[in-house]
Amino acid sequence: MFPYKTSFILQRNQGSPLYLQLANQFIELIKSHKLPPKTKLPSSRKLSELLEVHRKTVVACYEELLLQGWIESVPKKGTYIKATLPILQQQEFLEEEDVQSTCANFSFEKRAILERKTYETEEDWVVLDDGISDVRLTPLEDIARTYRRLSTKRSTINALTYGSTMGNYKLRSVLADYLNETRGLQCCEQNILITRGSQMGLFLSSKLLLQEDDIVVVGETNYIAADVSFLERKAQLIRVPVDENGLDTCKIEELCKKQTIKAVFVTSHHHHPTTVTLSAERRIHLLNLAKEYQFAIIEDDYDYDFNYNHAPILPLASHDTHGNVIYIGSFCKTVAPVFRIGYLIAPKEFVDEAAKARRYIDRQGDALLELVFVDFLKSGDLDRHIKKILKEYQSRRDLFCQLLKEELGTYFEFEIPKGGMAVWTKLNQKYSWDEVSQIARKHKLEIGDWQRYDYENIGHNAIRIGFASMNEIEIQRLIKRLKTTMQELDINEHN
Amino acid sequence: MFPYKTSFILQRNQGSPLYLQLANQFIELIKSHKLPPKTKLPSSRKLSELLEVHRKTVVACYEELLLQGWIESVPKKGTYIKATLPILQQQEFLEEEDVQSTCANFSFEKRAILERKTYETEEDWVVLDDGISDVRLTPLEDIARTYRRLSTKRSTINALTYGSTMGNYKLRSVLADYLNETRGLQCCEQNILITRGSQMGLFLSSKLLLQEDDIVVVGETNYIAADVSFLERKAQLIRVPVDENGLDTCKIEELCKKQTIKAVFVTSHHHHPTTVTLSAERRIHLLNLAKEYQFAIIEDDYDYDFNYNHAPILPLASHDTHGNVIYIGSFCKTVAPVFRIGYLIAPKEFVDEAAKARRYIDRQGDALLELVFVDFLKSGDLDRHIKKILKEYQSRRDLFCQLLKEELGTYFEFEIPKGGMAVWTKLNQKYSWDEVSQIARKHKLEIGDWQRYDYENIGHNAIRIGFASMNEIEIQRLIKRLKTTMQELDINEHN
Repeated sequence: MFPYKTSFILQRNQGSPLYLQLANQFIELIKSHKLPPKTKLPSSRKLSELLEVHRKTVVACYEELLLQGWIESVPKKGTYIKATLPILQQQEFLEEEDVQSTCANFSFEKRAILERKTYETEEDWVVLDDGISDVRLTPLEDIARTYRRLSTKRSTINALTYGSTMGNYKLRSVLADYLNETRGLQCCEQNILITRGSQMGLFLSSKLLLQEDDIVVVGETNYIAADVSFLERKAQLIRVPVDENGLDTCKIEELCKKQTIKAVFVTSHHHHPTTVTLSAERRIHLLNLAKEYQFAIIEDDYDYDFNYNHAPILPLASHDTHGNVIYIGSFCKTVAPVFRIGYLIAPKEFVDEAAKARRYIDRQGDALLELVFVDFLKSGDLDRHIKKILKEYQSRRDLFCQLLKEELGTYFEFEIPKGGMAVWTKLNQKYSWDEVSQIARKHKLEIGDWQRYDYENIGHNAIRIGFASMNEIEIQRLIKRLKTTMQELDINEHN
Repeated sequence: MFPYKTSFILQRNQGSPLYLQLANQFIELIKSHKLPPKTKLPSSRKLSELLEVHRKTVVACYEELLLQGWIESVPKKGTYIKATLPILQQQEFLEEEDVQSTCANFSFEKRAILERKTYETEEDWVVLDDGISDVRLTPLEDIARTYRRLSTKRSTINALTYGSTMGNYKLRSVLADYLNETRGLQCCEQNILITRGSQMGLFLSSKLLLQEDDIVVVGETNYIAADVSFLERKAQLIRVPVDENGLDTCKIEELCKKQTIKAVFVTSHHHHPTTVTLSAERRIHLLNLAKEYQFAIIEDDYDYDFNYNHAPILPLASHDTHGNVIYIGSFCKTVAPVFRIGYLIAPKEFVDEAAKARRYIDRQGDALLELVFVDFLKSGDLDRHIKKILKEYQSRRDLFCQLLKEELGTYFEFEIPKGGMAVWTKLNQKYSWDEVSQIARKHKLEIGDWQRYDYENIGHNAIRIGFASMNEIEIQRLIKRLKTTMQELDINEHN
């Protein structure tokens, strides 16, 4: 007889009831063919004696197996492992190619260039970023308080079920007012799709606009995640120069005369990665071109709220009277990346289609968090928060730029950015970021993915260095370590 | 001179400062060519007198316009609208095709079939659903309390910035334990990608597995959102029959012998829409086929937690030893749709690729909510919640099925579902859902999108009717209105 007594390990006081433990272990034995089809099972009385469990446990186990279809009961004869059960093929030695051949048989282009490495760093390391907010300044408790308050409101119940793929209507309405007031847009709820952040806006725009081989115009240097989003659609990228006034729109006009452009991608405010602002005249030029040559402008305005020298320049979307602009933004920079709320603003027909496309990627947003943001916008808390961090980031920019110039002016060249969270830092051509980042690691300074700023090999030798996420002490520490690094490089070169 | 005095409307005590209101109205006038390039502007003193504002306001406004690049200052001559500013082309009469031609120039296939209509209903209407949870039972306050508690913890700060596209590591770890215990999986953190819900799991699986013309096998009736996800990849669907034991795996074997199958989609537990369970022998058969013919099984286990007659049958993924199964699930049914947390479980290589693909659609999940769910799982609150609602839903199923049989047995045929939240309700072929839903509306009963259960025109004349979202009184009301509807149909037919 099968060694029932030694084949089962039952644990009392464990999470799952005994009968279920027994049943699941039976299933394993059946699957692994240790109990083959047509095996007669011992009677419940016999098995309960063998295993020293109550007979009811065995009866419940057999019922379970019966219901699940693993065993069958033959009247007056007994209980058998089901005769028709196929054998689950035994696991042979798991060869590499065996795993490869099924689920691993996938494909995805150009993904590699956006893959960020993770850097193993200890607590006292300095890690450069490309301009992200300081999450320590997040008004987290205010948000959590609002979250909790809303959770006790009866009307909130309606927000818990499946909702619109467009996002919560209240948020769309409040956001329309907010954006019209702060950015000079003329949008209403119907023009707004609430996204999970700018990346989803990019994804949806690419999906709707682009077919294979369609041409998208981007800057010679460009936000890499946008490049990849377009390449994912198998679109063709054409690059135009970027100078101190942003994208060269004259070059775009030349292109338009020769071929059909489907879209132009622009981070008008400020160009990613170089931080320049698209000038007013180029904005109008670009809008006129869009009208004349019938292309879409995808405007990613990730930096709008961060302007230190003057009021922000109104986005292209605010001047767009022909429905050519798709305007993308989010709260990831102003509040915190964890609050995945962004928006896509476009003509109603486009937004309707984008909402349908969105259904296939994550169905809908987080309506509860969206309601929290309704409160956050309406109460003026967001404005107050932006004012507060703007002041803080400005003084961080000033300190960072001052120290970078004073302490490292011979190694690096840069313009003080009028806004944003990063400085476009050009390394003297004598050096390479490769060397710098190697030496830096000896001094607990992680430069990060410097390659991604020039994966097209232009040779500008520049990277973005974010200043907003660091306080005064941290900025000083960064500068100090960078200086030590550069001095060591100099000594090495001398020897 | 330009009528400055009457061209500006300035509102004190409004949100934005006077100088900015003035500047933005200037920009409008410049853009609309009412103030053309090279126009000389009045001196700040003069304009301040005309507009009855402080001179400092005008000076600040001019500075703003200068910085933004709208005007230029010519030494000793004065301030002018910038000469090189192109004219923003005036909006002509906005023709329909004009809007169409740019942003609206997009494409998306088969989207229409998933488009759900929204039904304008008043409060006292009964609206059928296809089996969704009752959000009134959501433990919202517990969740909000945890949310708030976490927000006061210092360690939470780290979760607020950009994080892993895989999801919070803690949640992946706790979830691995939870799923291994409850579903007999043998997964670890590396096999888990936290998604926004099952739909994202479907999207990512399709994206990675399927190329144009690849073959996916699905049920003759199938979960429509899955169909669309595959069609989006331009895959080819081949349908096999579904009987009382689920997908006909013998038919799948026949197919495999003739052509290369890339994937099989299965809602093993329970088949969507017919609610049957894939039998144990077919599960093993399917797994063996997957191994032999090297296809992937996409297992969407949306209903796992809802079994009334016996313990749930362990998913295919728990028997998979060859890395052929991609297992998809979420908390949308057990907790509430608003909490957009789901999971995709697969071999590590697949999960790594899926995480990269996920970066392009929404960058990352909501790490804060993910931490809340860590607590929810670890504390046992989720288990207690599931136990509670399971009991409730079972009694709702029993009541609904009893009344459906007693009151409407002559019109409808159905099997009592062993689990899930819906009954697959076949209408007597004498009637059509079209007629029923028309009459029903007269009695404040909205049948909804009955067409989508048979967009392939099989003619089964059945739809899913959800029972879980309704309490006793609501179920009685639904049955009553449906009965009145059917009786009216009979009378109409008689006349």
